Amino acid sequence: MIRCITNGIVLTMNSDREIIDSGAVVIENNLIKDYGSIEEIKKKYDFDEVIDAEGGIIMPGFINGHCHVSMSIFKGIGEDVPDRLRKFLFPLEEKLVDKELVYKGARLSIAEMLLAGVTTFVDMYYYEDEVAKAAKEMGIRCIAGESTLNKNTPDSEIPYGGIDYAKSFIEKWKDDELITPAIAPHATYTNDAEHLKIIDEISKKYEVPILMHISEMDFEIKMFREEHNMTPTEYLESIGFLSNRIIGAHFTYMTENDIEILKKHDVGVVHNVTSNAKSARVISPVLEMREAGIRVGLGTDGPMSSNHQDIISVMHQYTKVQKINCGDRSKATAIGAVEMGTIDGARSINMDDTIGSIEKGKKADIIIVETSTPNMTPLYNCYSNLVYSAYPSNVVFTMVNGQVLVKNKELIRSNLKEIINDSNGLKDKVYSVVGPQQ
Amino acid sequence: MIRCITNGIVLTMNSDREIIDSGAVVIENNLIKDYGSIEEIKKKYDFDEVIDAEGGIIMPGFINGHCHVSMSIFKGIGEDVPDRLRKFLFPLEEKLVDKELVYKGARLSIAEMLLAGVTTFVDMYYYEDEVAKAAKEMGIRCIAGESTLNKNTPDSEIPYGGIDYAKSFIEKWKDDELITPAIAPHATYTNDAEHLKIIDEISKKYEVPILMHISEMDFEIKMFREEHNMTPTEYLESIGFLSNRIIGAHFTYMTENDIEILKKHDVGVVHNVTSNAKSARVISPVLEMREAGIRVGLGTDGPMSSNHQDIISVMHQYTKVQKINCGDRSKATAIGAVEMGTIDGARSINMDDTIGSIEKGKKADIIIVETSTPNMTPLYNCYSNLVYSAYPSNVVFTMVNGQVLVKNKELIRSNLKEIINDSNGLKDKVYSVVGPQQ
Repeated sequence: MIRCITNGIVLTMNSDREIIDSGAVVIENNLIKDYGSIEEIKKKYDFDEVIDAEGGIIMPGFINGHCHVSMSIFKGIGEDVPDRLRKFLFPLEEKLVDKELVYKGARLSIAEMLLAGVTTFVDMYYYEDEVAKAAKEMGIRCIAGESTLNKNTPDSEIPYGGIDYAKSFIEKWKDDELITPAIAPHATYTNDAEHLKIIDEISKKYEVPILMHISEMDFEIKMFREEHNMTPTEYLESIGFLSNRIIGAHFTYMTENDIEILKKHDVGVVHNVTSNAKSARVISPVLEMREAGIRVGLGTDGPMSSNHQDIISVMHQYTKVQKINCGDRSKATAIGAVEMGTIDGARSINMDDTIGSIEKGKKADIIIVETSTPNMTPLYNCYSNLVYSAYPSNVVFTMVNGQVLVKNKELIRSNLKEIINDSNGLKDKVYSVVGPQQ
Repeated sequence: MIRCITNGIVLTMNSDREIIDSGAVVIENNLIKDYGSIEEIKKKYDFDEVIDAEGGIIMPGFINGHCHVSMSIFKGIGEDVPDRLRKFLFPLEEKLVDKELVYKGARLSIAEMLLAGVTTFVDMYYYEDEVAKAAKEMGIRCIAGESTLNKNTPDSEIPYGGIDYAKSFIEKWKDDELITPAIAPHATYTNDAEHLKIIDEISKKYEVPILMHISEMDFEIKMFREEHNMTPTEYLESIGFLSNRIIGAHFTYMTENDIEILKKHDVGVVHNVTSNAKSARVISPVLEMREAGIRVGLGTDGPMSSNHQDIISVMHQYTKVQKINCGDRSKATAIGAVEMGTIDGARSINMDDTIGSIEKGKKADIIIVETSTPNMTPLYNCYSNLVYSAYPSNVVFTMVNGQVLVKNKELIRSNLKEIINDSNGLKDKVYSVVGPQQ
């Protein structure tokens, strides 16, 4: 089947950052077959279906490089309190996280992401099989990592039980078109060298990514300094764990040497500004990491942390926070933000050969962003409007792997009402743990 | 005529911060007559019209305390460049700002604001009569300040021509129900003591606010230090200019003494985080000013600066930037942000006797924020969801002074298509000054 998305501005994000003002994109089955000016494309093909972008921006879908989608059920609990982790998050996870909550929570976040033009997300949590199931059903692309750590978890009665879960989970999803299974050692401070070695071997054997929180917490920095007289990044290098198979989240507390180490081992980095800011952490040296040639993408982190699950908000906040940090309005540019939200996001998760830009042969993960609303009018420069003026609600159309999932701002393959009701149905359980919140 | 907005969560923002879970608000003509539980209200009144909030948050409209709405026509031009003011803004204003552009640009921003639940805005620009006209026609509440400064402007061939413009403008709009005319000395560094005295007298005589940029720019701080060995705030005090009639925008560069001075003279402050961040300025000590008891509200600044013209984005970014700044996640709370976006915003512009909360006898400036979308689900706490989870597009209904202006997310009293076309019609003029932008 050959389809055409036409009558829009094609923002390719290819290596020339080509933009075609009155452009069209040709899709054959699940792949991008061609793109060009409307006239050129019309001459070359006959279409089974034509989708009218109505002057909107036709661009690659956004990549959310780090999240915990199922935590949407806890979104908005215990905001603005110190030590929220121990007061709210840990009790909630201990008492409530089961297959049902993981599945229903994942569906809620996936709905939010698709409506906001996210076409790929990278997740780490428990019962990750349920996240993969939800993603597959709803048609979104996903790297799903089962968490492992040095204590019992909602899905394991023994420490490091996630390793066995991950092995069978990886076997199950290994050859899926949409789901890339992964293993996710929770953090530097919850996994010892012995188990990180096992995890690295699994990653090598199955050729799957490793997802991990690295250099996020102040206590983490202190602990590694005291125990090893190193930074967490230096420590991971010292045990031979670093490789280009790692997709590391956060890297907020960083030294110049840490940046060199990440570059040397070609570690993928996911920056989570909206989460880091809400947690009042230091500002990650993203500009320096990009300058050093490190692959850096953007993530939302979990819905309790950020809370938005869209990348437009993250791109926006990335520019603002970095500009404040360096005191230079010309840095942390709009085009840089869109790069990190699309093609550089794809690079950070080693998927830039198949997604992240509109190029011939790549997967048809394509969105349309409307340009006819007051906030998007006038449009002089696509990057400026996408980063400084757009709202996530300006996404009108989302296609993943050639499947239309959002049309006219509505989810068309999933039952949104059911998703919302299912999530609200878990509120009483949440109240039973944390009490009234208003 | 008695109307009822029912079936929602009434977030009053009254002094008890009362929240009614299954609540209703009664409106008689342009005023709030009553509010309470649905049952109570049903028993007490017969209604000419009932508006179903469908479980949404019924709350006071947002107050945008500082903007330059007409600059929407220049939105997105010359982003991420150093010295943008001289390279882009000044040439654009010099060559293009006329009555038509001010009117059309104002209508574009007002459309964006109404759709995002802003019910009052405070504006300063040139040809301010056109802004007032646009606001009046579209039904939004507005404080409109004509700019005066020490050089010729788009609407005056002589320096300080704005003073005469302001006088006749104030006479014209003085008794309007929606428009409050004001005089707007552009900034500390563009108005001398002699003219500030004249401006202050006009403000006293007509009982109108003074709008002014204060302590925003690094060169401003340097200039006042060199010329007067004072901060701009100290200087304004020394010439006897400070009073509670001043609505001052920015106050980014502040000393402890400056804060004491603002408190002593009860100056109103409008914080513009989204603009200040994009300009890479220092972070305004908002928490300290609030702590000192200063009246602080929120503003977007002009569409070239921020670029969003909504207050939900500003509330969100205020919390994130302040949390980073103080390193404490429990500070800059969600409830504090909503206060600044509503009742404290009203206080900062001396309008809290008539707007800013849902209370008997106040003007019916009311919005409904939906709660049934993925990003707003679940809802445990209204403040958390409004600040951390909401998008401006979650506003479904906007009423100003008892008039419904937005219903089901659509402008119902203004022709949006015409507004968008009018704005796009000015693009060629803009290109003729700044050249291609893509």
